[in-house]
Amino acid sequence: MSAMGHVSLVGAGPGDPSLLTRKALARLRRADLVLYDALVDDRVLRLARRAQRFFVGKRAGRHALSQPEIQAVMIRAAKRGRNVLRLKGGDPFIFGRGGEEALALQQAGVPFDVVPGVTSAIAAPASAGIPLTHRGLASAFFVVSGHDALVFSEALGALRPNGVTIVILMGFARRVALASQVLERGWAADTPAAIVSEGTLESRQVWRGTLQELAAGKSTISGRGPALIVIGAVAALDVSTTISGGLAAAMDGPSTRRAGRSR
Amino acid sequence: MSAMGHVSLVGAGPGDPSLLTRKALARLRRADLVLYDALVDDRVLRLARRAQRFFVGKRAGRHALSQPEIQAVMIRAAKRGRNVLRLKGGDPFIFGRGGEEALALQQAGVPFDVVPGVTSAIAAPASAGIPLTHRGLASAFFVVSGHDALVFSEALGALRPNGVTIVILMGFARRVALASQVLERGWAADTPAAIVSEGTLESRQVWRGTLQELAAGKSTISGRGPALIVIGAVAALDVSTTISGGLAAAMDGPSTRRAGRSR
Repeated sequence: MSAMGHVSLVGAGPGDPSLLTRKALARLRRADLVLYDALVDDRVLRLARRAQRFFVGKRAGRHALSQPEIQAVMIRAAKRGRNVLRLKGGDPFIFGRGGEEALALQQAGVPFDVVPGVTSAIAAPASAGIPLTHRGLASAFFVVSGHDALVFSEALGALRPNGVTIVILMGFARRVALASQVLERGWAADTPAAIVSEGTLESRQVWRGTLQELAAGKSTISGRGPALIVIGAVAALDVSTTISGGLAAAMDGPSTRRAGRSR
Repeated sequence: MSAMGHVSLVGAGPGDPSLLTRKALARLRRADLVLYDALVDDRVLRLARRAQRFFVGKRAGRHALSQPEIQAVMIRAAKRGRNVLRLKGGDPFIFGRGGEEALALQQAGVPFDVVPGVTSAIAAPASAGIPLTHRGLASAFFVVSGHDALVFSEALGALRPNGVTIVILMGFARRVALASQVLERGWAADTPAAIVSEGTLESRQVWRGTLQELAAGKSTISGRGPALIVIGAVAALDVSTTISGGLAAAMDGPSTRRAGRSR
């Protein structure tokens, strides 16, 4: 029997490859086998130069592999001595079923570790100039998935109206129904709301309005890529100067170009 | 007058320098001036090789500089053409007053950008084997600061009992009072609770128990470093195999050592 391999459950971050952690980069370069989800950027994937790469996520509403199948593939490959990298968008333990995968590996006796990532729940709003907490506006935030109607409804029931920032991941397609539910729970109609699509990428789109407008289907955004919804007073803030990303590019490159800003 | 400089508000991540993002690393290497807080690891700071580094945070209960002073220093330095890096533990927009600093820069006409980081709110629990969301246990999480009694109490008021995972940052010193408040709000006494101190470092300490035990002062942990509190069903999980960090070290190094695990 071959030596036991290893599995890393790795967060790929929110999209922008420069927001990958150094540890994730090292893992990508050493991996033999990468199993990746739909939200992982191609430029991140290509960093796994020596690895076989398999898409195991969901596209066009269909799962490439079921959750038990993904777990079985990881375990089998590791038991054959392979360095497996399970790559998830954002952070592996935030709505990624990473906890279930870790438990399955633990039960199978496969050595593994978890490499946290920058979560889009925080980074995508930030890229639109929205801090989830802000003195005087929000002193806590609540992160929930909008993917499943029943699960969302139950989670939302844990929250009293009008207190804190709500971040809804995976809820773009159901945004009208979700916003309506939030309204029905007693949140003020004029609560600021925002949608951030492809948060950390050049293709970012941002819509801002109110909860009522969101519930009325008035948000104008195509949402081709992953998008999240922010509800709460902070959604009206825009503390960014760099919507275009041009300034950041100038900072990272060798250029001496400066992006100024007049008052 | 010299050319305008630039400010980057950068997240230093949760402690482990390998959890720094590639973008943060690039910014550290190019900075002229680093203004850093108490929660930033020395090994991260040393990556800013060519920069002057100033501590501007809070130690032993005293602020080195007030918030307006920090903002004034950043603005003045940038206006003198310097590349300023404002380095914060975790993510700059999560309880770091990063939003206020960004607004001040915006109002002063100073070009700046924000580099998100891995937040300890997620990474520290993960390092103790606690996923903040887990199918069947928690479908949402709530992040709050325990630093200020009144602010905590107001934020906690937004939450109904027993639904979701609560993560309390900056609440270790007040853990008995905070847990008592959560109990008084109607959370079940046997709700699992955990404290994770210095989450992503070798020096990590983890305590697990119940909310009632936490409120009764029964947590046994020294909490020298930054510590956070997790309350909710997921706090009883331990999906980690790598408490010691030894396995991760083996994966990152050139060694062929493997950390096995028997069932």
